[in-house]
Amino acid sequence: MAEFIPPGTRWFDLPSPFPMKRGGALHGARLAYETWGTLDAAAGNAILILTGMSPDAHAASNPANPAPGWWEWMIGPGKPIDTQRWFVVCVNALGSCKGSTGPASRNPQTGDTYRLEFPELSIEDGADAAALLVQGLGIERLACVVGNSMGGMTALSLLARHPGIARSHVNICGAARALPFSIAIRSLQREAIRLDPHWDEGRYSEASYPENGMRMARKLGVVTYRSALEWDGRFGRVRLDSERREDDDPFGLEFEVESYLEAHARRFVRKYDPNCYLYLSRSMDWFDLGEAHAGDTAHGLAAITGVQSALVIGVRTDILFPLQQQEEIAAGLRNAGCDTRFLPMPSPQGHDAFLVDETRFGPAVASFLRTLPATHFIAGMVA
Amino acid sequence: MAEFIPPGTRWFDLPSPFPMKRGGALHGARLAYETWGTLDAAAGNAILILTGMSPDAHAASNPANPAPGWWEWMIGPGKPIDTQRWFVVCVNALGSCKGSTGPASRNPQTGDTYRLEFPELSIEDGADAAALLVQGLGIERLACVVGNSMGGMTALSLLARHPGIARSHVNICGAARALPFSIAIRSLQREAIRLDPHWDEGRYSEASYPENGMRMARKLGVVTYRSALEWDGRFGRVRLDSERREDDDPFGLEFEVESYLEAHARRFVRKYDPNCYLYLSRSMDWFDLGEAHAGDTAHGLAAITGVQSALVIGVRTDILFPLQQQEEIAAGLRNAGCDTRFLPMPSPQGHDAFLVDETRFGPAVASFLRTLPATHFIAGMVA
Repeated sequence: MAEFIPPGTRWFDLPSPFPMKRGGALHGARLAYETWGTLDAAAGNAILILTGMSPDAHAASNPANPAPGWWEWMIGPGKPIDTQRWFVVCVNALGSCKGSTGPASRNPQTGDTYRLEFPELSIEDGADAAALLVQGLGIERLACVVGNSMGGMTALSLLARHPGIARSHVNICGAARALPFSIAIRSLQREAIRLDPHWDEGRYSEASYPENGMRMARKLGVVTYRSALEWDGRFGRVRLDSERREDDDPFGLEFEVESYLEAHARRFVRKYDPNCYLYLSRSMDWFDLGEAHAGDTAHGLAAITGVQSALVIGVRTDILFPLQQQEEIAAGLRNAGCDTRFLPMPSPQGHDAFLVDETRFGPAVASFLRTLPATHFIAGMVA
Repeated sequence: MAEFIPPGTRWFDLPSPFPMKRGGALHGARLAYETWGTLDAAAGNAILILTGMSPDAHAASNPANPAPGWWEWMIGPGKPIDTQRWFVVCVNALGSCKGSTGPASRNPQTGDTYRLEFPELSIEDGADAAALLVQGLGIERLACVVGNSMGGMTALSLLARHPGIARSHVNICGAARALPFSIAIRSLQREAIRLDPHWDEGRYSEASYPENGMRMARKLGVVTYRSALEWDGRFGRVRLDSERREDDDPFGLEFEVESYLEAHARRFVRKYDPNCYLYLSRSMDWFDLGEAHAGDTAHGLAAITGVQSALVIGVRTDILFPLQQQEEIAAGLRNAGCDTRFLPMPSPQGHDAFLVDETRFGPAVASFLRTLPATHFIAGMVA
C-alpha cells in the first residue's frame, strides 16, 4: 500500500478512462518517468527504456535527482546510451509502486488504495500506456525502444500493437512469451506472499506487512536472477564468520551464499508493495506475443513491422529468460524483415548480467546505437 | 513426529551408542532396509543402494511387499540390476522418517520424539551406519555400491571412510560436495518450513502440521529436480480447464505447470516429517569430501582406494547436481586409479532423470554391471 517514488520523478497523465486489455479501466491514472538529454527539433532522437519488474524510472542520475540510477553506467554523456546524442526516457511500469499507477495507488473512484480492486494487469496495458507517453511527449517515432527482462516483453508488445512507433529495438534478456519454468518460479513467489498471514488478501498495512512472504519471494527471485556458475566462483563453500552467525539457531545462516540472499531480501522487502508484486508477476505469466496467432510466437513476431534494425542480447547462464527465448525473438524479427543482430553473452551473472556486466553490455549497446542513421536524415525519410 | 514405514521393512540395530560425526551419539538406533535376490556363499554378489533424500528402502517390489518400488524398472529378475545374479540391499537413510532412526523417532533416553534434540546429522553418519549394516549382513566386500543424488554423496563418503568396502561403484547424479546454488535452494526450502508458524521450532503435531511450509519446500524441490527443457515440451503454456480452476481466487492455479507442482506437493506434505527434512537437507549442505584435505575435492576423491571400476552418470539438464559435479567425481576416481566410465546423459528430465528415464539409465547400469567379474573369481582374489 506504500508507494516508493524517487525524487525528481515526472508524471504523464493517461487519458481517463484508460481501458485495460482484460477488462475494466483506470481513471486518473498516470505514468512516472524520467528523461536525460534533449529532444531535437524533429523529435527524432528519442530512446525509450522499458524496465524489468522492480526498477523505478531512475535509470541514471540527472539534475532532478543526482543519485546514481540502476543503469548508471549505461546512460549519460559519452556513455553507451549517449545523452549528448539521444533524448532518453525511462518509464516506470504501469502497475508498479514506484510512481506509476498500480495496486498501491489511490483509487479515485473510492478514495481508498486499490489493492486487489485494481483491474487485471497485462503486459499489453503497460505497452499501451507507454505508447501514449511517447505520443504525449511529442514523439511520433522513437529512434529506439530498449527493453530489459519484463521490459523486453513490454517492448515487443509495444512494437506489435503500435506499428511504426520505433525505428529500432534493443531487446535484452527478454521473451516473447512466458515458459513453464519461469511461470513455476513466479507462481511460487506469489504463493509465498499469499501464504503469509500478514498478506491478508491484500489488506496488509505498514504495521502488519507480509515480510516473510516478500523475503521468500525475493530470495527465490535472486536465485533465478543470478547463476550457479557465478556463485561457484563468488561464494564456493565459504562460511560466515562466527560473529555473523546466530549460534542459538540450529538452522540459521551458515554459508556466505545464504547471507547474500538475506541481504538482498532485506534491502527489498519493505521497499516494494506486495500487491504490485503479485500483479506484475502474473502479467508476465500471461504474456504471449503469439496469443492472437493461436499461440504461434513466430507469427506474433512476424507481425511486427516497421522496425528497421534490432539488437537482441541474451545470456548463456540465464535460467529465467533462457537464451533460446532471445534466439526466438531474433529469428522472428529477422523474419519480419528487420536487420537483426543476435548476441549470446557468456556473462556468468545469469539474467541480471545486463545490470552488472558493464564490460560486455556497454560496448554492445553503444556499437548498435552508433549504427543508427543520423536523426535529421531519418526524420526526413519518415516525413 | 510421524514415521512412514513401508510393510516388509527389515531392521538392523546399530551398535549403541552410535557416535555421530559432529558430536553426540544415538542410542538404540536402527536402519531400515530391504533386500532382493540371494547372497551367495562367498557373500561376493552384494550390491548396496543408497538413496536420495526422500525415498524409503522399498526400491522395488519383493515378496515381503509386492507394491512397486521407486526404482521398480531397475531392480528385479532380468532387470538392469538383475536379482538373479545380485543380492541387492537398499537402505533407508539415517535421519529419515521412513524406518531408519531420525528426528521423528523416539529418543529412548527421554521417551519422547527426538525432534530438534536429535544430534546434528551429517552425510558421514549415514555412510558409517551403512558400513555397519553391510558388515552386519556378513558382507566383507560389496560387489558394488550404487548411490543416487544424496546417496551419491553417501556412497563417496562410504568409500572414503571405509576403504575396501566395495569393489565397484555407480554414482548417479551425485556430488562430492555441495555448491552454493544447491545450498541456496535447500536453504530456502528449510526457511519455508521454519517460517510456517505450525513448525513451532519442531514441536508440530498431526493436528498442527507445517503444511504450507512443506508444500513450498516440495514445490521448490520439484522445480529443481526437473528441467525447463522438459517442461517446455510437457506443459508449454497449457492452461487448466475452467472446472479445475478456482474462479474466486485471483491468484489461484491457472497453468498446467502450477497444477503439476501442486499435485506433487499434495502427495508429499503429510508423508514426510518436516524435522527429518530439515536435518537431511542440512546434511547435504555440509557435505564436502575435501573437508579433511583443506577443501580440496580432488584430494578427497584421490583418497578413495580399492575401487576397481566405477560408472559415473550425470544429466546435462540437472541444475541441482550439475554435470560438472559428476565430471569432477569421474576425474577424481580415475586419479585414484579406478577404471571409470563417465556418462553424460542428454535426458530432458533434469536431476530426476534417474528415476524416470528408463531407456537411458537401464542399459547404462546393466552394461556396467555385466562388466564386473564373476563373484567366485573375485571372492577368491579378495580372500
